[in-house]
Amino acid sequence: MTPTHGPMADIARACREASPQIAMLGTDAKRRLLRAMAARLEHDADAILAANAQDMARARDKGIGSAMLDRLRLDPARLAGVARAVREVAALPDPVGLVTRREVRPNGLSVERVRVPLGVVAMIYEARPNVTADAAALCLFAGNAVILRGGSEAIDSNRAIAASLQHALADAGLPRESLTLVDDLRREAMLALLQQGDSIDLVIPRGGEGLIRFVTEHARMPVIKHYKGVCHLYVDADADLAVALPLLIDGKRSRPSACNSIETLLVHADIAATFLPRAADALRAASVQLRGCERTRALVPDAAPADDADYAAEYLDLILAIRVVDDLDAAIAHVRRFGSDHTEVIVTRDDAAAARFVHALRSAVVMVNASSRFSDGGELGLGAEIGISTTRLHAYGPMGAEALTIERFVVRGEGQVRHAESRSTR
Amino acid sequence: MTPTHGPMADIARACREASPQIAMLGTDAKRRLLRAMAARLEHDADAILAANAQDMARARDKGIGSAMLDRLRLDPARLAGVARAVREVAALPDPVGLVTRREVRPNGLSVERVRVPLGVVAMIYEARPNVTADAAALCLFAGNAVILRGGSEAIDSNRAIAASLQHALADAGLPRESLTLVDDLRREAMLALLQQGDSIDLVIPRGGEGLIRFVTEHARMPVIKHYKGVCHLYVDADADLAVALPLLIDGKRSRPSACNSIETLLVHADIAATFLPRAADALRAASVQLRGCERTRALVPDAAPADDADYAAEYLDLILAIRVVDDLDAAIAHVRRFGSDHTEVIVTRDDAAAARFVHALRSAVVMVNASSRFSDGGELGLGAEIGISTTRLHAYGPMGAEALTIERFVVRGEGQVRHAESRSTR
Repeated sequence: MTPTHGPMADIARACREASPQIAMLGTDAKRRLLRAMAARLEHDADAILAANAQDMARARDKGIGSAMLDRLRLDPARLAGVARAVREVAALPDPVGLVTRREVRPNGLSVERVRVPLGVVAMIYEARPNVTADAAALCLFAGNAVILRGGSEAIDSNRAIAASLQHALADAGLPRESLTLVDDLRREAMLALLQQGDSIDLVIPRGGEGLIRFVTEHARMPVIKHYKGVCHLYVDADADLAVALPLLIDGKRSRPSACNSIETLLVHADIAATFLPRAADALRAASVQLRGCERTRALVPDAAPADDADYAAEYLDLILAIRVVDDLDAAIAHVRRFGSDHTEVIVTRDDAAAARFVHALRSAVVMVNASSRFSDGGELGLGAEIGISTTRLHAYGPMGAEALTIERFVVRGEGQVRHAESRSTR
Repeated sequence: MTPTHGPMADIARACREASPQIAMLGTDAKRRLLRAMAARLEHDADAILAANAQDMARARDKGIGSAMLDRLRLDPARLAGVARAVREVAALPDPVGLVTRREVRPNGLSVERVRVPLGVVAMIYEARPNVTADAAALCLFAGNAVILRGGSEAIDSNRAIAASLQHALADAGLPRESLTLVDDLRREAMLALLQQGDSIDLVIPRGGEGLIRFVTEHARMPVIKHYKGVCHLYVDADADLAVALPLLIDGKRSRPSACNSIETLLVHADIAATFLPRAADALRAASVQLRGCERTRALVPDAAPADDADYAAEYLDLILAIRVVDDLDAAIAHVRRFGSDHTEVIVTRDDAAAARFVHALRSAVVMVNASSRFSDGGELGLGAEIGISTTRLHAYGPMGAEALTIERFVVRGEGQVRHAESRSTR
């Protein structure tokens, strides 16, 4: 049973009770709110940067690595970027109230499908303090109240950012509880939060595999996972190599730590001898370590041997697994076995091969002759994104403001009844 | 961790492995398959009816009530109806492959949103054996493999129906595992099934509150609940009583056991003295028991007193709770407190009041001057429905074939890269 007592139940219920006020805001009011939030972040810059300095000092004392430190760090330019991102959300089209379909039934009933907010969205995330502002802005703009549970490393920054945003909410006459930061970061508190299925409509975990498994196992409400990206680039027999090579380099080198980077290169056997040595030269020049199957290593002798663990790995690093496959179907079978349903690319001039690749794979984003790095809400036209869903329900792939709403039915009639005899009563 | 061994893991994995063959079927092949399934059900009628007779005998021995016995019972006419329903699904528009949006980005990338099957859908349900065929047909038509776990009362009927449908699958050269009936009905087996989140994309529980709570608590995959319907009819100060009365009678009397029946009548104080005595006469004539607040009982003295438990109740019976409210906002507050997010109706001639009611309530279906009994997939234009979702994610309200698919991204380019320098590699 869902526990209805305790601090997490209280927090979640207060957020739920505040949610109709956010849901009922008009577009203009939401835009004004978000612009006021951006201005408030700028106004509170000194306090936010001071809080961030405390997080940084604690992280350094703990000996946290430089990549993580860099993700944690705010400076005036980065904070200005956070405020700018909030203003960009304010400029998006409002998904709430959108009539997506309209039909008049034979009995004269007008049936509309209309987008409404989800209600209360909880985000559970790690490290980067900018997520606190980004997620809050996107959830509120989609008409949702939001519960934010960040990581312990960024707790001071998150508190300062949330306080600033809540200040803007209060100035607009809106309940502070509609943006709630959970600052009890103990495991029991997270467990209790995940049991508030009566108050929270959706939880979105963003972070490492451990966090996502924990949330999935314990949540009593729907979860949309933002899981790993084991993205594939398949170079077909009929590929234009002048297209394939830049797509490979872009996919692997332009930002290896991104989930939409290429982790495995699959090459049709017929083109391997032509393509792989050139690809290996370019990858080596880009400092990418290579690991390959036997057929790869026959063509690229300096590649290390790759095993199944390599093909399942999300390296997020300058490492690439390579496999030579007999044909398109073998490439499809490989992706089905090792892929994470995130993003796959085929390079080919053969329309039938492209169609088969697209049709046979169930990944959220499938690309033909384009870089996997475009698998991103901004690049695909969604504006801001709250992440990239690998859950095959509700939202799949880059997830923007619209994915934080749901379609419901609005029906208008003139007294229609289902059973004619109900009419005989006067 | 998800257990990857044991019979339920094996069943789920086999279904998952069969799923791409269903996902890749074209529209014509799916229509042929469903028509062959309907024909096979007719061909196997004797065996199915004999199996049903065993279920019925067992149920009678257990002293199961007549309403339940009636739900369990098949006869030649009902079985013909089951086959007809499968043929009706075959005639629906195919949601798979539907391009819902298409955009060309400034860099020339073509971005399409295309509907694809979910993958593997598990249905967990009670009693009625027709659900076995209905759910199988709808899931397969939407390109999904399906796992069916019905109740123990109908196990022989379900086995016979599933065997018949699997025969049609095998005749079409498709794997029987794409339609899997779980016939280990022990609690441990259900628990194990609910942990196969790596193989099952969605579980849909349909049944009593206990079943739905159990599934929600234990499932490691997304759940779409088909929960109770505490539906409200609100008669506004400005209602046309010649509209309100038939809507009330239709909502309460036409099929009290349906989840879209009216359970609570809310009446604006200004119209209560005019409306309630007439409504009470008509309801009494329809054998409906009345329970009301003090103000109701002042106007309808034979109504029993209603308490909060009445307002929260899904009677599914000829009982109606009544409350007189001060105004529209009080009606909205009542629905927010006691409603189940299913279906609400306002009767009014005041467009502003209707708009406010629609806007302020978060229920899946909100109706203006129309009967709650239209809250049904067939009536709202979806064709067949797998149920009515009260989960505020993915599908909300009546859930048809389209809701068994998901939109993903298909991107086509001519070699576009995200970072121009990736192009310099040749």
